[in-house]
Amino acid sequence: MIDQSAYPVDPWALRETHLNLNVLAQSESLFALSNGHIGWRGNLDEGEPFGQPGSYLNGVYETRPLPYAEAGYGYPEDGQTVINVTNGKLIRLLVNDEPFDIRYGQLRQHTRTLDFRTGLLSREVDWASPEGQGIRVRSTRLVSFTQRSIGAITYEVEAIDSTLHVVIQSELVTNEVLPPRSGDPRVSAVLEAPLQAETNYSSEMKATLIHSTKISRLRVAAAMDHHVECQANVQVSTESFPDLGRATYSATLEPGQKLKITKFVAYGWSAERSESAMRDQVAAALESARHSGWDGLVSEQRTALDRLWERADVEVDGDPEIQQAIRFSLFHVFQAGIRAEGRAIPAKGLTGPGYDGHAFWDTETFVLPMLTYTVPEAVAHTLRWRYEMLPTARDRARLLRLGGAVFPWRTINGAECSAYWPAGTAAFHVGAGIAAAVVRYVAATGDTDFEKRMGLELLAETARLWRSLGHHDVEGRFRIDGVTGPDEYSAIADNNVYTNLMAQHNLVSAADAAQRHPDEARRLHIDQEEMATWRDAARAMYIPYDDVLKIHPQSEGFTRHEVWDFENTTEDQYPLFLHFPYFDIYRKQVIKQADLVLAMHLRTDAFTDEEKARNFAYYEALTVRDSSLSASTQAVIAAEVGHLELAHDYLGEAALLDLRDLAQNTRDGLHMASLAGTWNALVCGFAGMREWDGMISFAPCLPGGITRLAITLSMLGRLIRIVIMPEETSYQLVEGKPLQILHNREPVTLPARRAVQLPNRKLIPLIPPMQPYGRRPMTHRSVS
Amino acid sequence: MIDQSAYPVDPWALRETHLNLNVLAQSESLFALSNGHIGWRGNLDEGEPFGQPGSYLNGVYETRPLPYAEAGYGYPEDGQTVINVTNGKLIRLLVNDEPFDIRYGQLRQHTRTLDFRTGLLSREVDWASPEGQGIRVRSTRLVSFTQRSIGAITYEVEAIDSTLHVVIQSELVTNEVLPPRSGDPRVSAVLEAPLQAETNYSSEMKATLIHSTKISRLRVAAAMDHHVECQANVQVSTESFPDLGRATYSATLEPGQKLKITKFVAYGWSAERSESAMRDQVAAALESARHSGWDGLVSEQRTALDRLWERADVEVDGDPEIQQAIRFSLFHVFQAGIRAEGRAIPAKGLTGPGYDGHAFWDTETFVLPMLTYTVPEAVAHTLRWRYEMLPTARDRARLLRLGGAVFPWRTINGAECSAYWPAGTAAFHVGAGIAAAVVRYVAATGDTDFEKRMGLELLAETARLWRSLGHHDVEGRFRIDGVTGPDEYSAIADNNVYTNLMAQHNLVSAADAAQRHPDEARRLHIDQEEMATWRDAARAMYIPYDDVLKIHPQSEGFTRHEVWDFENTTEDQYPLFLHFPYFDIYRKQVIKQADLVLAMHLRTDAFTDEEKARNFAYYEALTVRDSSLSASTQAVIAAEVGHLELAHDYLGEAALLDLRDLAQNTRDGLHMASLAGTWNALVCGFAGMREWDGMISFAPCLPGGITRLAITLSMLGRLIRIVIMPEETSYQLVEGKPLQILHNREPVTLPARRAVQLPNRKLIPLIPPMQPYGRRPMTHRSVS
Repeated sequence: MIDQSAYPVDPWALRETHLNLNVLAQSESLFALSNGHIGWRGNLDEGEPFGQPGSYLNGVYETRPLPYAEAGYGYPEDGQTVINVTNGKLIRLLVNDEPFDIRYGQLRQHTRTLDFRTGLLSREVDWASPEGQGIRVRSTRLVSFTQRSIGAITYEVEAIDSTLHVVIQSELVTNEVLPPRSGDPRVSAVLEAPLQAETNYSSEMKATLIHSTKISRLRVAAAMDHHVECQANVQVSTESFPDLGRATYSATLEPGQKLKITKFVAYGWSAERSESAMRDQVAAALESARHSGWDGLVSEQRTALDRLWERADVEVDGDPEIQQAIRFSLFHVFQAGIRAEGRAIPAKGLTGPGYDGHAFWDTETFVLPMLTYTVPEAVAHTLRWRYEMLPTARDRARLLRLGGAVFPWRTINGAECSAYWPAGTAAFHVGAGIAAAVVRYVAATGDTDFEKRMGLELLAETARLWRSLGHHDVEGRFRIDGVTGPDEYSAIADNNVYTNLMAQHNLVSAADAAQRHPDEARRLHIDQEEMATWRDAARAMYIPYDDVLKIHPQSEGFTRHEVWDFENTTEDQYPLFLHFPYFDIYRKQVIKQADLVLAMHLRTDAFTDEEKARNFAYYEALTVRDSSLSASTQAVIAAEVGHLELAHDYLGEAALLDLRDLAQNTRDGLHMASLAGTWNALVCGFAGMREWDGMISFAPCLPGGITRLAITLSMLGRLIRIVIMPEETSYQLVEGKPLQILHNREPVTLPARRAVQLPNRKLIPLIPPMQPYGRRPMTHRSVS
Repeated sequence: MIDQSAYPVDPWALRETHLNLNVLAQSESLFALSNGHIGWRGNLDEGEPFGQPGSYLNGVYETRPLPYAEAGYGYPEDGQTVINVTNGKLIRLLVNDEPFDIRYGQLRQHTRTLDFRTGLLSREVDWASPEGQGIRVRSTRLVSFTQRSIGAITYEVEAIDSTLHVVIQSELVTNEVLPPRSGDPRVSAVLEAPLQAETNYSSEMKATLIHSTKISRLRVAAAMDHHVECQANVQVSTESFPDLGRATYSATLEPGQKLKITKFVAYGWSAERSESAMRDQVAAALESARHSGWDGLVSEQRTALDRLWERADVEVDGDPEIQQAIRFSLFHVFQAGIRAEGRAIPAKGLTGPGYDGHAFWDTETFVLPMLTYTVPEAVAHTLRWRYEMLPTARDRARLLRLGGAVFPWRTINGAECSAYWPAGTAAFHVGAGIAAAVVRYVAATGDTDFEKRMGLELLAETARLWRSLGHHDVEGRFRIDGVTGPDEYSAIADNNVYTNLMAQHNLVSAADAAQRHPDEARRLHIDQEEMATWRDAARAMYIPYDDVLKIHPQSEGFTRHEVWDFENTTEDQYPLFLHFPYFDIYRKQVIKQADLVLAMHLRTDAFTDEEKARNFAYYEALTVRDSSLSASTQAVIAAEVGHLELAHDYLGEAALLDLRDLAQNTRDGLHMASLAGTWNALVCGFAGMREWDGMISFAPCLPGGITRLAITLSMLGRLIRIVIMPEETSYQLVEGKPLQILHNREPVTLPARRAVQLPNRKLIPLIPPMQPYGRRPMTHRSVS
């Protein structure tokens, strides 16, 4: 866990006031820069010490064997693992004859700041070498939102109190030695030094390295160029080797004199383009970046971010930690999605190697909602990625003897990488999550063109999957048997309520979209009969209900299973899956992450208020939150059913997951879904936002600790600003024509510009439900 | 499949009239010799050509890694694989300067005979070398039942029509090159040349090789000695190397002259004993064998077999194929179990490397019933093996957070080797099968001493498992959720009827045994309260029933699952698990092997006649028999519910599985459970034998194709001979005091010696139920 004091609360920045090597790897994730195409972990400029060196390109992976002691039909033979590409952020420094390394000498001051408004990561170091020579190093780093192939750094060293000879080595380094990632020697063999050198060039202050991966045959190019400023004479030399490009700057600095270099780094990768095409591509990108110059890149970055904050900022008064966390979240999710352009948003973005760099259902279900109402262009790009993977998903369906398309549980290139089918392939709900994201995006943007070109096909192919996966039983019910829902502490169950409700929505939405676009439907061979079978299956969909307990079982039969022995489970036995066998976890009532509760959020229409309250209380007592995908959803429904303080606590858990390293794996990268969950908890929780049948609705209310919550979001071309105060809420259309919304279930038409003030819903404070023994959410606010 | 004509039907032997290299590997399994301690596949004396060289010692394995792409808590990290030990059966022959190899020259005649009464495998070959020199080779091989460390061979070569110089090389060869067994390089590395040489000796006509396995650290000793006879002069030399011992005999033979050697081979292995102790152990065993001499070994073997046939023979008139098959089955099961002595009876006995040499639940459930009523001593030995593995099984239970003992799904040394838990660890019924075998053995023998020393502890520890695995639900029912029953086309289901009924019997039997033996119960810390919870759980055991279909669902909810699309499944898509994903197989109504139907056999008391008939018909339509563990059980229940011709067909499938290679994997070894299933089908099927509450019952009836069925079996010290004719059955106590049995549910007391004649039950011929499309059992009888 990260001590709160490491990062003083700041509404617009993450600031580190001193370097703590114990949480160095975590800080590398927190300070990661990305534009969705390039990812640079927040490694120290000089490369060492490190927790996990990391430079990533979205979509660059190596293929690795997936071993099975007992294999089965349809098990994927190969997986994909994100690789650490050429490190372009490395800048080493020699002071007289001492390398600048904060582990030696004396570190007088060390601060790092990630500024959410400028998008810059800056660092300031006061250091005395072991022989006592003082220097000041200032560096600033960016990964450009406007020039997607470009990262840039300014690096300045200043002699403080004596004349110093300094040497700056600015490098490109390929195949860095990394901490081991697998105990399997065959996997390690693939991932150790994954890049084979093809060519290298150097000239003037430029160097270029071109490599390719051994098995996946992806070509990766990295190039750098420099600009140097110094009051003293600077000697410059450049050289390149297969795995190393190096520009060296040396100068003798009088006290107060500085040597400053600006480094531009360009990346490119392709499975198709030739060595020479890649060489020219990165050279052109570099030229373009030099043309903008450092100042130009900085100013473009600021402009892009200003636009984001204008359209997406969330203000949280009364809880400064959450204020910082929501902006940190928005900033990182923005980084992950803004220029992904036809590639996935992986579970960790491009901030670390966690989960092998794979994308999961998290993207559509947790990350895309937030982007839909803030940066909808990014959503279109992510869904285009799924669309382009349709042929692979259709092949997978055929292999599994199913209709339509089966999207992978975890993947980089679209092919299934899950080696454990009960928690992978069987979790077919991923398809319904994609369909829901399509419906949500189209409803929020009115992007009919997208719906026609890509959306309908995604809806139809997922609907076809459900139609082939389910069947009508002797009682005429449409059942979906033997699948795994969101909760990973259950598997291979019949009629998971979440899955069935999401499939139902998927089937109806596909039929509706096909009806709206008959030409496109014809092209996809959807006829009236097929649409009718979709509607019929949706109508007959079996949603089990427990008449004795008066709640929905998570899956059929779930509520007759033994309740986990929480009283005799100790704190150090969590997460349970590391301490108990799956078979035991699966057959008991214990929940890793919101499942039925998530259904109540995403299918708000399918439950009465009373059902929601009863279900929430029942599942609250079973949910241990061994997944980072749970707290935000619990916050949303806790707020809806009136447990506002509990909702606030869950909001805190989602918001501070990475900032405080609550799951103890932030070292491997940030949790995009939990970051986006912060937004979900605030907007769907306290603002009570839901979207159903193309209509957006709100039901605001605030917990005691938040005095004001201001949200800006987009819907159908309008920019809406919602300001929630303890008693009332004001809605204002900042941009666009009047729009009808629902406030506390009543239709309200928002006029252009003018704010509308409405009273909040009145909640009778309820006795909050109990969590399992020892699993109460953390309360992040200091008790007053 | 093996052409029927390869082995002409013979009631007392398996004879091969010509060598067919296409089924060489299969013949090596069929002609395998074993005594349960040593296993020698029926490889040709000269070693080549071979399908699969094989010499095994029960319990000798190598440890190998079990790889997982996604590992989980409690997954075993290492497995065990039976290894091919030093080959002691190799005898090479040089004729002038041509090696005797049936692939070259001219093979004029080649016959092999396995005689079920003598236990000898004999071979006769007329061969002309490529240069036209004719020889006759006669060899006879045995693996001794009376001297368990000993195998012996006589090998004789005769010059036919010209003077020949012959050289016989009698060898011990370690680390023979085998066909590859795994695609995983790490596994292959372990299994290639698994034995490390320690020492070798040779002197006179003796040689000894001592090796040990690399990881499991088992020491294996093999030694040979010879006796030579020849009318001509013989030159003898002996030598030894790390992986080779060789005695060479050369002589010049005039036409009609013979060179004959007798080879004695002794094996020993130990995890504890030193090199020198092992050396002396095999030397002593050899000495003892030489003392008996070949004739002595042959005569001891005959005596042992005479006793078996006297106590266990089954005569089947009217169906000569089944007559041969049942004796083939009895012979091989006898071989597998007779001298296992504290070791397992693996699924393939010691006839091949199939299933890695592992023992499964098959042993107790299919093999031990037959041995219980014929060679009960062997049953006590096998159960002693389980008893001795109790500490490992208790450790496994602790690891899985369960009470009592969890026996492994597959193992050699007692530790779980299953790398796929849904079909391994989750199949907890293995424990109930062991408990049932204990109860059956004690009921059939009255061996109270065994019950006190080992049986009670086995019963109690398995009962404790069930008590901890199940729970009472809100309706007061005792449920066992999330387990896998016998049918491997379902997994992780709630309240599998077979499992629950077997667990119920296990719980009650444990409580009864504890009550019978209070002192032993005290020693095992079983008090009245614990016994009460066992009885209570048994009483409240939930047995689901489908009120709509009026049948028992295999597991809760099973009958609402989609029925497999049998019509659109082609012949070449069987076995299904090689062509469809598990997730799809598991969630549909399709059955690999008898599950509920097996419950109706082993818990005959738990179903009414009508339920049996209805259940059988329902499950018959779903069962595809992709497992060799199904046909015999279907035969048993088909006979009980009156489908006698169908029962006869299933009997044929079980009986001829290996003789005709119906499953196309006889090359890897014989199927012990199916061999024993032949006996079950005849004895529990047509004789209708059941044992319940210590009482043995019969309900005989014969299908049209069997005119007389005579069975001999033991019960409580009596030897009973049952002769079933089409209309009536005679019971005769060959040995022992009067005994009460049930005949057609009526009590009958069998007097000493005198036969009792009783009418068979009358069955109204029923319309037989349908099997899935294309899955009707084979009819083995030629249609007249």
